Formats: sequence, structure tokens, C-alpha cells
Amino acid sequence: MALDHGFHVVIDKPIAFTLDEAKQLKKKVEETGLLLLLTHTYAGYPMVKQARNMVKMGELGKIKKIVLVEYPQGWLSRLSEKDGNAQAAWRTDPSKSGKSGCMGDIGTHAAHLAEYISGLKITKLCADLNIVVEGRKLDDDGNVLLRFDNGANGVLVASQIAAGEENALRIRVYGEKGGLEWAQQEPNTLTLKWLDEPIQILRTGSHRLSNEANFNSRTPAGHPEGYLEAFGNLYRNFAICLSAKIEGTEAPAEALDYPSVNEGIRGMAFIDNVVKSGLSNEKWTNFDV
Amino acid sequence: MALDHGFHVVIDKPIAFTLDEAKQLKKKVEETGLLLLLTHTYAGYPMVKQARNMVKMGELGKIKKIVLVEYPQGWLSRLSEKDGNAQAAWRTDPSKSGKSGCMGDIGTHAAHLAEYISGLKITKLCADLNIVVEGRKLDDDGNVLLRFDNGANGVLVASQIAAGEENALRIRVYGEKGGLEWAQQEPNTLTLKWLDEPIQILRTGSHRLSNEANFNSRTPAGHPEGYLEAFGNLYRNFAICLSAKIEGTEAPAEALDYPSVNEGIRGMAFIDNVVKSGLSNEKWTNFDV
Amino acid sequence: MALDHGFHVVIDKPIAFTLDEAKQLKKKVEETGLLLLLTHTYAGYPMVKQARNMVKMGELGKIKKIVLVEYPQGWLSRLSEKDGNAQAAWRTDPSKSGKSGCMGDIGTHAAHLAEYISGLKITKLCADLNIVVEGRKLDDDGNVLLRFDNGANGVLVASQIAAGEENALRIRVYGEKGGLEWAQQEPNTLTLKWLDEPIQILRTGSHRLSNEANFNSRTPAGHPEGYLEAFGNLYRNFAICLSAKIEGTEAPAEALDYPSVNEGIRGMAFIDNVVKSGLSNEKWTNFDV
Amino acid sequence: MALDHGFHVVIDKPIAFTLDEAKQLKKKVEETGLLLLLTHTYAGYPMVKQARNMVKMGELGKIKKIVLVEYPQGWLSRLSEKDGNAQAAWRTDPSKSGKSGCMGDIGTHAAHLAEYISGLKITKLCADLNIVVEGRKLDDDGNVLLRFDNGANGVLVASQIAAGEENALRIRVYGEKGGLEWAQQEPNTLTLKWLDEPIQILRTGSHRLSNEANFNSRTPAGHPEGYLEAFGNLYRNFAICLSAKIEGTEAPAEALDYPSVNEGIRGMAFIDNVVKSGLSNEKWTNFDV
Repeated sequence: MALDHGFHVVIDKPIAFTLDEAKQLKKKVEETGLLLLLTHTYAGYPMVKQARNMVKMGELGKIKKIVLVEYPQGWLSRLSEKDGNAQAAWRTDPSKSGKSGCMGDIGTHAAHLAEYISGLKITKLCADLNIVVEGRKLDDDGNVLLRFDNGANGVLVASQIAAGEENALRIRVYGEKGGLEWAQQEPNTLTLKWLDEPIQILRTGSHRLSNEANFNSRTPAGHPEGYLEAFGNLYRNFAICLSAKIEGTEAPAEALDYPSVNEGIRGMAFIDNVVKSGLSNEKWTNFDV
Repeated sequence: MALDHGFHVVIDKPIAFTLDEAKQLKKKVEETGLLLLLTHTYAGYPMVKQARNMVKMGELGKIKKIVLVEYPQGWLSRLSEKDGNAQAAWRTDPSKSGKSGCMGDIGTHAAHLAEYISGLKITKLCADLNIVVEGRKLDDDGNVLLRFDNGANGVLVASQIAAGEENALRIRVYGEKGGLEWAQQEPNTLTLKWLDEPIQILRTGSHRLSNEANFNSRTPAGHPEGYLEAFGNLYRNFAICLSAKIEGTEAPAEALDYPSVNEGIRGMAFIDNVVKSGLSNEKWTNFDV
Repeated sequence: MALDHGFHVVIDKPIAFTLDEAKQLKKKVEETGLLLLLTHTYAGYPMVKQARNMVKMGELGKIKKIVLVEYPQGWLSRLSEKDGNAQAAWRTDPSKSGKSGCMGDIGTHAAHLAEYISGLKITKLCADLNIVVEGRKLDDDGNVLLRFDNGANGVLVASQIAAGEENALRIRVYGEKGGLEWAQQEPNTLTLKWLDEPIQILRTGSHRLSNEANFNSRTPAGHPEGYLEAFGNLYRNFAICLSAKIEGTEAPAEALDYPSVNEGIRGMAFIDNVVKSGLSNEKWTNFDV
Repeated sequence: MALDHGFHVVIDKPIAFTLDEAKQLKKKVEETGLLLLLTHTYAGYPMVKQARNMVKMGELGKIKKIVLVEYPQGWLSRLSEKDGNAQAAWRTDPSKSGKSGCMGDIGTHAAHLAEYISGLKITKLCADLNIVVEGRKLDDDGNVLLRFDNGANGVLVASQIAAGEENALRIRVYGEKGGLEWAQQEPNTLTLKWLDEPIQILRTGSHRLSNEANFNSRTPAGHPEGYLEAFGNLYRNFAICLSAKIEGTEAPAEALDYPSVNEGIRGMAFIDNVVKSGLSNEKWTNFDV
């Protein structure tokens, strides 16, 4: 393992095959003092940084509802794993993907985004996981009721059989004073709906943005940034922190905010808990880590 | 009661105070042969008719998922019933609104729309109902997992504390071949996302619409029709059926499709079942009628 | 003529067959003291009232550019007047429609909207009028450069051969501090783009609207109002003024603002001047009335 | 000059200070056999390639109207060149930017995009150029009527004083069978409006795209590509052609399509002609090259 040989690590999600492995990884990271980046790409978008910052600053008031974080895709609407689609094959194979398909692949991204923007932690959930396409071995669809540590409720929907959808990750968060909405397919727009004021549209590179948003933006307003730039932001921020560590300096606060082992552990726990809930007749399953 | 005196009846939703009353009403309607219109206004929009017709004709293939029917409003984000808001007062008062607030007021509309467009029936549900605003007596928010009679799953979200939202009823239905999306606030557009073809946008008054859609449209394409026209369509269709009944003629098929006692009964049953599920620790509650 | 018999008059646009007739009509109205409503329907939308009011209040600063008022339709993309389309037949027939087709039919609406919202008057114009569909007798398309009485410039585009368009009247007005945008096909939204602030979206029935907007709105926010309600607003306001006149009372200020003979005269002058400019080799033609 | 030393050249627009220089450059390129890339970035977007290809294949029928290519920006709404804004300073300084400000800076992009997508050439134009902000030395705004070599008409609007706009380049092209619309700020969407069919939305990486579009796309559908990827496409395609030239092989057809000296010459001619027309009292000025 790279950490054993003294390498810093960049790793794709999921961080490990099981929650236990993820915890061991965390221990190793702490022992070695090495850095680890988990590529939850969507956390790299400027307007996601903006959303997180606004919630943190209390601009929406106390968060009441995350309705919803949704991640519909349509690419597994057919049993493509039997037709030689390699991507489809490993993502639907329990021996390669572990105990969950859709929830492991994209549900984890949605759960991370909900916690990342809201600053809240999921404490219990109620999952309805489905194998919609006959002959498939792992869940390809699911709806999950959520409760967060401040009492807020929410819904997470992830599906790979929502025929016609591309990669439509979207989140809406409502606080006492208003709600925000962000959609990955038009990532440079953040919509703010206020209880007592007109709707506002924030745009990458434009007015009234946080340092965190601007730090992760490269081009002037109106020159759209996309998925690759979001990905690049994770790497760039990680590289800044690495350089700072190597040189014994302090990385800027804006660069410190990249997903790492803790997020990896919560991702593995999400998979465990959502699968457990899916099999349970009880309404609520605690989110154990 | 109007029916007893031989009057045909137009009645706002909910149709009664309890499910039993609703059933008695149905019996009365059947005995008297009188007609009854239940004003589920959203069923009057041309593009809702179009959506229902496309599902019925099998254009989306077998329906797999209704993700989601959502109805966020923000107008009860504060405890307005204590500030002299009369609308807020009666809608949050158990002695006037019955056993549910948000689910009774707008959840029933969402449930009706889901069944109306999909042609499916809810068979079980799992509800998380909430009183988000402290001091309120009835639910002002809720998330509900749904199962339908063909095995499809879905999610219903209704909230009156989604600060900043107006009246954002929206539905997405996915079948084997593609998905459809309709949003009440821009009601003249129906978006179709196909598994193997580009996205299509159908527009009121424009190309490739069903008779049902065109029958409920008054103005040329591009001259927007709104809420009052949808309302008017219900009344107009009911009046056509009344006239036909009185004159002993046959009403056109397109006019027969107005909500009546059966929809009223399902609405009352939805309230009963969703409240029961909200109080239960079991994941699933059967949708009893 | 109705006025001669003492009737108040509601008249569709264009107000007359020639500019001279329009002037005579004005004289008659002034002599008789009767009221006349010219149905420039688009002036009846709440968000058009809001736009006009914001400009009047100086919220955009001095108006610099109207880029653009555009009115693309596609319904005359073929030579439909030869295929028994009655609407197409009279609108393209010089003996019925006068000296202009597209500019007379919809260009006048666009010009009225530009003057109505901006509060400015067109002082000169430069027109490129076209007969795009072979065999047609009147212009079916045109682009016009505009200058206004405060020095602002603008562009007016009207076309009936923009294949695929419905009734896509849209206007954008820019001042020193920001710009506004309104589109008839989604009439309940008014977009404000600010030089130094985030974009704002105003919505019919929602926050921070003028009395003029609210006076012309019937339903709560999120219950869309459409073309027929806009039309109804003209009639309603005219009726209020009529009643007030008959009863010798004062109509409320918000009701006084309906198009009448002056707007009719400017509409006829627009047709005259735009046709004259279309035939001219000079760049600019004065807007004579 | 780089070409004299045998270097291939990548050059930003405008290609030269005058039209004559541009022609000399072309001669030099032809003599040396060296390659030159002119960075009209917007030509690098996948959906722009798609639009161009659809027009070329005749899918819209004969092109009738380009209404409009518009390029509103707001960043020069104040006299920023006097406030130490370096970008503003050189772009509004005749000794650095030549004879035109707004038309030279962004009007050329708009003109190139119109010719690139439509496959047509501008043959005459009628320009209204303005200095809107007092104290500025070059045009900061303009509206231009266009005629193309097949008889189609169009409008080009470019402005740097459209307060509140970011970089809102947008184009609409109408043919006999339908129209297309592309907007740079949401570049992965191409809207097709048909005369006889529902609206279609094409999306980068999704269904029914041309080889040209797919060749210039990197990520799966729903993973947005932006300005930097469009820029990268120009470089990548140029590099492919360079490699092929050096290795004596044939570059793929999809890579050959990058802007070069001919586009540079037309850009310089556009500036000359639009300025000439702006000063003329004649309606039409021929587009001389």
C-alpha cells in the first residue's frame, strides 16, 4: 500500500472495500502523517463552495430541510452488464463493487454533498433500495429518508435507471430564512430563494461570492467552468497542502478543504447503513460509524 | 346536503372530513345519479393531460419510478397562524383541517397528480411527517416513500416550510424508454427525456399533442395559459357532462375526465394512511381504502 | 362609427387603416369625451407593469440601450395564405392589412412594449424589411435599428418566418445600474441583472413588487397567470375607468394606465415610418407623427 | 516574426493591427507552408461544432435568418479605463486596439460565430456604433444589420455597456425547417425548434451528435465542459494537424477545422467595414475584403 511506502495518496471513491478497511486507512494516515485526497469531485465546484460557505455563515438561518439531494442517471436502464459494457459490468458485480451498486456508486456522492454543504451529519435513515432491471445483482435505484444531527430532515434519491437522465446531481437546502439550489449540470449557477426577498442568482466569478468560491474559480464571469475544473480544484488544493507540508509552511485556509479519510469513512458507513436499512422492516436505522 | 335536494355538486378538496364521510358521499352520488366535481385543479392543465395520455399510450414504456412528486411551499415558514393570518389559522387547526395539515392540504394534490398521470395506484407508503415550526399543531412538512400497484417506487415530498418556495408542485415519472417532467409554475411545458433520443419539449398548443391536451387549451401556442384556465377546464368539462346528462346525449370522451368521488375517497385514504404511517415504527404501511 | 353614437370603444390594434384615420379618431375621442381602449395585450401583464414602474422610479439608472425588443414567430414560414389559412390570408393581403404585414401585425406590439416599459419615444429608425417567403405580398420579417429621445439606442426584430418559434415576444432594457429582461412566454418572471449585485428574479404575486404589478395580479404567487389574464386586466382597468367616469368618481391611478388613442397613433406612425425606412437608402429615417 | 524563423504560430484575435497586415500574414503562411491557429475560442465548443454540422447537412433547410448573434457584456458600463483597470485601459485605447473597441474586441467573435455556424458570408452591413460611456474614445456598443451571400438577413449586437451581463454570447439561426439556438454561458445545450415537430434539446456527450461534436468532447454526458475545454480543443486540433504535417500523415477531418488566416482576414475586414458603415449615412456598406 502506497502509504506504507511513504507516499501521499490520491484515491477515488469509495475509499475502501469495507468500513473496517476505511478505518484502518485512517489510522495509517494518522500514524504516517501522510496526506490523502478522496476525489469527491462535486465538492470542487465553486458554487458548491459558495453554498457551503453561506450555510456556515448562517445566511439561510438554521437548516430545516434538505429536500432533496437527488442523483438520477439513466445509463443502467437496460441490463447493459450483459452486453459487454465494461463500466456497467464491474459496477453491478458484487465481487467488485461490494454490497451496493447504485448507493455505493452515486448515493455516496449525494450523501457527501448533503453533509458537505449543510455542515450536518446524517444520524438515521430509512432506505427503500431496489433492483429495478431484472437480472441485476445489486441495487440500481433507491430512495432514502434522512434525519440530521440538528433535527433537520431530508430525502436522498439515487437512481441509475431514471431513463433519459445524464448525471443530474442536484441539491436543495432550506433554512429558516430561505433555500438554496445547485445542479451539477449547470454548475456555475447557485439559486437562492428567500422567504422575504426576491430570488437571487449567484454566478461563478461574479458578485458577492465567498473567498472559498473565488479561490476555486479560474476564469472571468461568464466563461463557464466544468467538471474537469472541479476535479482540478481538488488536485490543486491537495497539491498546495502537500507543498506547504513539505516546505513546513501554512497552506491557505481555502485549500485545506478537500475530502479525505473522514469523508471516506462516512461514505463506507453510508453504504453499510443504507444497505442495512434497505433490508430492515424498521422505519429508522441509526447511522453507525 | 346539496345532493339530497337534487343538486349536482362542485366541491373543493378535501371531499369530506373523514374517509367514512367520503364513502357515504360516494354512495349518495351513486344512488342519486347526480354528478360531482372535485376540484383537483392541477389535473386541468393541458400538459398534465398530455403527460397522462402519453403514459396511457405506453410511450414511456412500463413505468418504473415516480421520482418524485414534490410540492414545496414556503408560506408557513413562520408561525403565521398566531399573527392573524386567517388562511394559516384554519389550515393548521386540527378542529378545522382534520388530522393532517400539510399532507391534507397539499400532499393530497401531489398524491392525486402522481396517480392521475401514472395511471397507477399507491399500495403502500412510508411517511416521515414533521412539525418543523415550533408551536404548530399539525404537520407542516413530510417525506413519503411510495410503492405502486405495478411495483414501481416513488417519493412524495410536501412541505409548507420550504422557505422561499411559492407553489412549486412538480412531478417526474420514469418508464423503460424515458422520463417526463412537469412543473406547475411553468405549466405550458412538458419535458421528455428519452433513453435513446434527444430531449423533447412539448408546449401547450403546439405539435404532437393528444386530443386530451388540445381539448383543454384555449389560445394559440405561445400565449400562456395559467392556473385560472386549468380551473376553468374542470368546470367547463363538468358543465359539458352535466349538459349531456340533462339532454340525454353523450359527452365527448375528453370531457369525462374530471376528478370525482373516487378521487375524493383516495384523497381521504391518503390522509389516513400517511398519518398512520407517520406514527408507525414499521417501514411500510398498507394503503387501505 | 361607435363614437358617433356615444359609445365608449374597445378596439383591436391597429387602431385604424392609416395614420390620418388614427388622428381623426383621436380628435373624435377628445371631442366626445368618450373613452377608448386599444388592446395592446402585452401591456396587461403584471411583470410588464413592474418593469415599467422600475424604469420610471429610476431603479435601473438612465436607460442606455434597449437590446432588444424581439418578436419572432414561425407560423408564416410557408406560403400558408395560399393553402386556405384564413388568418394567414388576411394578414398578408395589402388590401386588408395595409402597407405592412409583419411590422403592422407584431412589430407594432414590439414597438409599443419598448416605449411602454422604457418610457422613451422612438425618434428615428433604420429598417431592413424583408419578404422571405417567395410569393408573399407584404413583409414577413424585419430588423430595425432604433434611436430614442434620450439618446439610447435599440434594436427591434420582428419575424413571422422564424421557423419553430411560437409567440416569443421578449424585451431587454439596460440602464446605468443594470438590465431587465421579460419574455412573454414565461410572463410571471422578471429578471434583473445588476452591475454590482447578484441577479434577481421577481415573480408575479411575490416580494418587492410595485402597486401597479400587484393591482394587475389575481392569484397567489406560484399560481401562474397567462395571456387571458393580461387581456382581462386591460378590460378590467378600462371598465374601472368607465365606471368612475359614469359615476363621476376618480379611478385609482393603477387603472388609468391602459393603451388608448395616443398609443394607436404611435402604432400607425411606426408602420408608416418603418415602411418608409425600409424603402430608403438613407441610414436613418425620422419617426414622424 | 515567428513565421520568418520557421515557427508555426498560435495567435490571439485580432490577427493583426490592420487588414493589410492580415493579408501579408496570409501570404507568408502560404509561402512558408507553416500552420497558424487563430484562437476564436467559441468555435471550439462541441455544441457549436454540432450546430455548424447540422446547418451543413441541411437539417434546418435553407438558412433564412440569423436573428441574432448577440454578445452583451457589462464590464465597461463605467469609465473603468480611468480607474486603473488595465484590461479596460488597453481595450479602449485607439493606439493599442486600433480603430474599434467593442466591435474589434467582441463583435469580431460574434461575426465569426455567425459565419462559422451558418456557413454563409456577410456581404453587406449597416452599423450603428456608439460610445455610450462619456469620455471613452472607442465604440463600446453597437448594433449591425447584416446581409449574407445567400440572401439571408441577420442582426449582430455587441455591447460592453449592457450592465449586468457577463459574457453572454448567443446565436440563433433559422432555416426553412426550423431554428437553432446556442448560448455560450450554458454551452453544453443546443436547442432545436422545429416548424413541424416538438422542440429538441441536444446535449454534449449525448444522443444524435455529429462526429465533429463528439471529437471535441472529453467527458460523459452530464459532466459539463466549459470554456477551458473549448480553448483546449483548438490547441489539441491544431497540435494534431501539426503532428500530422511533421510526420507526413493525414490529420483526421474533425481536426482540420480550426480558425486560421482566412478567418483572421475576415475579422479584420469586419472591423474595417463596420467602422466604415458606422460613419456612413448610407444604409448599406459592402463587406469588402
